[in-house]
Amino acid sequence: MKLKPLADRVILKMTEVEETTKSGIILTGSAKEKPSVAEVISVGPGGLVDGKEVTMTVKPGDKVITSKYSGTEVKLDKEELIIVRQSDILAIVE
Amino acid sequence: MKLKPLADRVILKMTEVEETTKSGIILTGSAKEKPSVAEVISVGPGGLVDGKEVTMTVKPGDKVITSKYSGTEVKLDKEELIIVRQSDILAIVE
Amino acid sequence: MKLKPLADRVILKMTEVEETTKSGIILTGSAKEKPSVAEVISVGPGGLVDGKEVTMTVKPGDKVITSKYSGTEVKLDKEELIIVRQSDILAIVE
Amino acid sequence: MKLKPLADRVILKMTEVEETTKSGIILTGSAKEKPSVAEVISVGPGGLVDGKEVTMTVKPGDKVITSKYSGTEVKLDKEELIIVRQSDILAIVE
Amino acid sequence: MKLKPLADRVILKMTEVEETTKSGIILTGSAKEKPSVAEVISVGPGGLVDGKEVTMTVKPGDKVITSKYSGTEVKLDKEELIIVRQSDILAIVE
Amino acid sequence: MKLKPLADRVILKMTEVEETTKSGIILTGSAKEKPSVAEVISVGPGGLVDGKEVTMTVKPGDKVITSKYSGTEVKLDKEELIIVRQSDILAIVE
Amino acid sequence: MKLKPLADRVILKMTEVEETTKSGIILTGSAKEKPSVAEVISVGPGGLVDGKEVTMTVKPGDKVITSKYSGTEVKLDKEELIIVRQSDILAIVE
Repeated sequence: MKLKPLADRVILKMTEVEETTKSGIILTGSAKEKPSVAEVISVGPGGLVDGKEVTMTVKPGDKVITSKYSGTEVKLDKEELIIVRQSDILAIVE
Repeated sequence: MKLKPLADRVILKMTEVEETTKSGIILTGSAKEKPSVAEVISVGPGGLVDGKEVTMTVKPGDKVITSKYSGTEVKLDKEELIIVRQSDILAIVE
Repeated sequence: MKLKPLADRVILKMTEVEETTKSGIILTGSAKEKPSVAEVISVGPGGLVDGKEVTMTVKPGDKVITSKYSGTEVKLDKEELIIVRQSDILAIVE
Repeated sequence: MKLKPLADRVILKMTEVEETTKSGIILTGSAKEKPSVAEVISVGPGGLVDGKEVTMTVKPGDKVITSKYSGTEVKLDKEELIIVRQSDILAIVE
Repeated sequence: MKLKPLADRVILKMTEVEETTKSGIILTGSAKEKPSVAEVISVGPGGLVDGKEVTMTVKPGDKVITSKYSGTEVKLDKEELIIVRQSDILAIVE
Repeated sequence: MKLKPLADRVILKMTEVEETTKSGIILTGSAKEKPSVAEVISVGPGGLVDGKEVTMTVKPGDKVITSKYSGTEVKLDKEELIIVRQSDILAIVE
Repeated sequence: MKLKPLADRVILKMTEVEETTKSGIILTGSAKEKPSVAEVISVGPGGLVDGKEVTMTVKPGDKVITSKYSGTEVKLDKEELIIVRQSDILAIVE
């Protein structure tokens, strides 16, 4: 059972971030915008979205930071997934 | 008696999701955005919608996750249907 | 005496829907969006509307479902008419 | 003394509508949108309005229904005039 | 000392309107939109404004009706001036 | 130490306006829009701003009237500067 | 461990500004818009962003003033970073 995102949507899996490790990423954020590190699970095809050409630049396996948890949360096979638009992804963690 | 959606609209039928089955999809969501699994019943022709070219990528029989219940609910022959725009569909469940 | 709609506007006549007939359409809806079955009486010419090309796809006699009652209500020769934009029409009932 | 409307604006004169005549038009409307029958007095040149080409389709003498009284009311030589944009005109009464 | 308006802006001088003269213009208006007769003092060059081509159609000396007093009021050499965008001008009084 | 504005931004220095001089400019304004005379200190390069071509028409030394103090205030070497977009500049004082 | 910004995003590091040094920059601002001096750490690739071509004009090492702290704050290896869109950057401090 798999989710195939449409258009410019990206399916993410939340990753646990230990706050005390060395070189660890500790996320802070205002109440309005909750940033988070997540792993890309699958990526929509892009193309014309709302009349504008969108090229997908993230790929499965990327660790990313998103600005918004407004993505839709879905529980699939006990995994918590989040569906966001690629434009909600701020940066890739390398 | 049938509903033929216009433009980029898609007619969906809610599907019952058992929360306890193996590999079952359990949906969670914030109050604002109620995600849901639904089955595509019929699909509008797409084309120019609000001045932008829209290609329909879902087809009847697809199981989909939508982000919003803002679609219009219609009861037809005792079935509960929902009319949404294709852009309200987040992912296809395969 | 006739109303000739401009641009992408469509003139509708509300139709009575019996809630208890076999195969009857029973409409439900949230307070914000009141869906309704209506009959198309006349159709504007379409063309450039707000800078975007609009092709009219409904025709007089069509039974349609609209999402919004924000159309303007007009009483003409004792008939209750509603003037909507074509984009407020969700589906045609066949 | 005359008013020459600019761009896509149309100058209207309110017409009295008797509510009880045969075949009379009786207008009803929500508080937000006050429809009205009015006569077109003069019509702007159209052309590029807010970056979009607008062709004027109403002409002086037309009886029209407008959706909004947000037009600016002006009293000229004791006549009550209303200046609206053509897109606020819903239909022509023939 | 002179004001040279930029882009699609127009500098207006309020004109006194006697309410009781024959053929006088008496302006009425809702609280939201205060119409007014004003004289055009100077006119910006037009051209690309917010990415859209604007041609200036009013000229110094024109008496105009504006829909909004949201223009910026400036007192220059004891004259009360108002700076508006041309699109806030509804009609020319001839 | 200098500020180099980006895109269509303009850096202004507030100028003191004596209210009682002959031919002086006295500014009045509603609470919402605080007009002001300011001197242009430096001007961004213009070009594509939010997808639209912007040509810079003000230059350092110009005295300008701006409609909004929503520009960001910065204190540099004890001078109060304001960074605005060129479109917030209404007119040049000559 | 590094953050690679997407699209038109820029990663900034807050810089401490001493308020009392000679020629120091002292920032003031309204409650709504908190300006700040920050150092550019890394810069996204630009390109088509929301359907519009964006060219990146800031580069790592630039000291910049941003109008908004609506950027997402991230703590990476004990450094406080802020991810903004390039259009939130007002000026470069030279």
